[in-house]
Amino acid sequence: MLDLIVKKALVAEKGKVLDIGVKDGLIVRMEENLQEPAKYLIHAQGKLLFPSFANMHTHISMSLLRGLGADLPLMDWLQKVIWVLEGEFVSPEFVRDGALIGIAEAIRSGTTLFMDMYFFEEAVAEVALQAGIRAGLGFGILDFPTKVAKTPEEYLRRAKEFARAFKGQELIFPVLCPHAVYTCSPDTLKKAHQLAQEEDLYIHIHVAETKSEVEGALEKFGKRPVEHLYSLGFLSERTLMAHVVWTTEEERELIKSSGAKVLHCPESNLKLASGIAPISDYVRRGIHVCLGTDGPASNDNLDMLEELSTMIKLQKGANLDAKAMDARTALKIATEKGFSAVGIKAGRIEIGYSADFILLDPQKPHLQPLYDPIAQFVYSARSSDVDTVVCNGRVLMEKGELKTLDEEEVLHVAKKWKERIEGFLRDKIIH
Amino acid sequence: MLDLIVKKALVAEKGKVLDIGVKDGLIVRMEENLQEPAKYLIHAQGKLLFPSFANMHTHISMSLLRGLGADLPLMDWLQKVIWVLEGEFVSPEFVRDGALIGIAEAIRSGTTLFMDMYFFEEAVAEVALQAGIRAGLGFGILDFPTKVAKTPEEYLRRAKEFARAFKGQELIFPVLCPHAVYTCSPDTLKKAHQLAQEEDLYIHIHVAETKSEVEGALEKFGKRPVEHLYSLGFLSERTLMAHVVWTTEEERELIKSSGAKVLHCPESNLKLASGIAPISDYVRRGIHVCLGTDGPASNDNLDMLEELSTMIKLQKGANLDAKAMDARTALKIATEKGFSAVGIKAGRIEIGYSADFILLDPQKPHLQPLYDPIAQFVYSARSSDVDTVVCNGRVLMEKGELKTLDEEEVLHVAKKWKERIEGFLRDKIIH
Repeated sequence: MLDLIVKKALVAEKGKVLDIGVKDGLIVRMEENLQEPAKYLIHAQGKLLFPSFANMHTHISMSLLRGLGADLPLMDWLQKVIWVLEGEFVSPEFVRDGALIGIAEAIRSGTTLFMDMYFFEEAVAEVALQAGIRAGLGFGILDFPTKVAKTPEEYLRRAKEFARAFKGQELIFPVLCPHAVYTCSPDTLKKAHQLAQEEDLYIHIHVAETKSEVEGALEKFGKRPVEHLYSLGFLSERTLMAHVVWTTEEERELIKSSGAKVLHCPESNLKLASGIAPISDYVRRGIHVCLGTDGPASNDNLDMLEELSTMIKLQKGANLDAKAMDARTALKIATEKGFSAVGIKAGRIEIGYSADFILLDPQKPHLQPLYDPIAQFVYSARSSDVDTVVCNGRVLMEKGELKTLDEEEVLHVAKKWKERIEGFLRDKIIH
Repeated sequence: MLDLIVKKALVAEKGKVLDIGVKDGLIVRMEENLQEPAKYLIHAQGKLLFPSFANMHTHISMSLLRGLGADLPLMDWLQKVIWVLEGEFVSPEFVRDGALIGIAEAIRSGTTLFMDMYFFEEAVAEVALQAGIRAGLGFGILDFPTKVAKTPEEYLRRAKEFARAFKGQELIFPVLCPHAVYTCSPDTLKKAHQLAQEEDLYIHIHVAETKSEVEGALEKFGKRPVEHLYSLGFLSERTLMAHVVWTTEEERELIKSSGAKVLHCPESNLKLASGIAPISDYVRRGIHVCLGTDGPASNDNLDMLEELSTMIKLQKGANLDAKAMDARTALKIATEKGFSAVGIKAGRIEIGYSADFILLDPQKPHLQPLYDPIAQFVYSARSSDVDTVVCNGRVLMEKGELKTLDEEEVLHVAKKWKERIEGFLRDKIIH
């Protein structure tokens, strides 16, 4: 008996109406009229079926800080708002509640995998497991003390403990997160890469996000960030680099030859005035590019469809080239390229791939007439059109209703933190 | 007796919960607890109230062509797809049905004014009046023959007839639309501006959209597009210029001193690879800037909230300056600046302003916690959060349901045109 059958969905990448059969988390049937028993049926007539999104760079619990200090320059935003509030409030409770809000939003907008870097990731793991969403989790490793650890050695020891505790699970996996070139010494970076090899982990790091980061690396190390990482032996197929806005031709070749991957966050890069990453050039060179939203306090949401649409339009506009990227390539970057970057066989609607997909209802004025489902998904749709979400064969949302999380609780914890944080800000301004 | 009271809405620009009283299309009361009889009550507790959007540049009936030829370069897209299909299909029926789909989408996403330039605008007027939405309407005036007219003289004569037939109405108003510098001779442009003065009309024109348009003008007239228009006496407070991507410092000063207005279409400019307009510089100089989506075949939707969010992020990112534009300025460009550009006192929530506003429901994960309604509207919200739309005091949508248009009919006409257009494309490819 099959676990799930989705009946009569228009499978966008096939251009055909098909029944999809799922068993043990995998797509096992794709037929025009599937006649087999199943534990659960979804009637998808008139709906579009796409792979779900992989949000490859975020700090999901920062949902609790979204909208605060909007329009401040990056360093003011960090120093005057974010770090002050994080110093005051970040705790396992904060991280857990922020993850609850963020994961509810992520599922609602069609995401079934996110890569997270923050504090107290055990608390994110707890919510992700409850929600049934995939997550690559790691806390930031830094040279200076935070609530997590005091010294690089302590961060690395804790990272190893975290990795061993969370390895071998079905949906979540530990990731090593040295924060950046400007917050980790060469020694910390080397030890982190060594640990990643020993424990067979992916590494998630911020790289070349701003011009000033590049200037700082040149001053300190005589090398640009990507060159610096390469010289430390840090670039390999297990290295996932967020942003990568500022690179030379030579650095792009180092990325390509090492097999390191780029996690592109176009809306955060725009909003924080970091710049426009040369993504169509990376793709042309054969660099593995994925997409992410960055944290919901710097974007300010976790909307991968908006991110995808911004990415493709931005590459065309900034390069003055309408052929800089096409809709099918953009869709692949937001889906399959994300999953495959961390070894998950998902993001395509094929037999043998994981059952990670979404249904959309196109019976709405902004999607009509519907000529080209892929182009209209990329250019015309909005994430609220996502109607149903399946992750690893499990239904996380159906007809707009979350099936694994309680939205009443989401609103309740949001209210609680709004009161606490606004109270603190009020007191700070008064005194 | 008041016509409408909206109870207990959080009025974002006031930061307060207020009751709004409406009479004869105007906001006439704003109080904490309004105790007056009214013909209709909307309970807005927990909802946010913002001004509605003014979409200042579109070709709304092109909704029937959305998604076709996506990813083609501009001239291929126009010559191989759009002009071929328009030549075959454009008729009053096409324009009317396209306007029906487009206006339904516009209302759903919170727009109560659009400026349209296409063919057979009488058909757009018919739907706009039925829908109860504001519209500035004009057909494109060109030097070459189309279904509308054969010669510039005939276009201008018809434009005068159209202007006289549609003047003096409450919601719709005629606009003169010489298409562009590269499609209208200096003589046509001069006569158009003269006609606009005689009949007291706004002029709506495409200006400096692409680099190649600038090169063409330099070659033909020895002047860049804005300089050329200035030298013809075409720039005045009645001149509304769409795009204005490519300008020199001197041209920006000509725009400023003449009082001509800029209709910014960031997503179309990106998608068609036209470029990134220097909007924050225009705003700094005191140029009147409004926002538009352009036609739904080149964007590919009529989503003003998405357009607004793209505009502000793009200005920050392209200028590498997080202070290039703030959320309040961006909101004003998408609302008040649009209405005031065509002399309508709307786009602010104040007594004496037109009752053009929207309600949003923020009880959703992606808008929680809600600290700063304006910043989170601009950065976090999506147009599907628009719940209720009021235009000139009339309720066009309430709790997600259109009140003046039949969405069954929208889907019906979309299906009809999809079949016709796909049939034609199939035949063309086969033969």
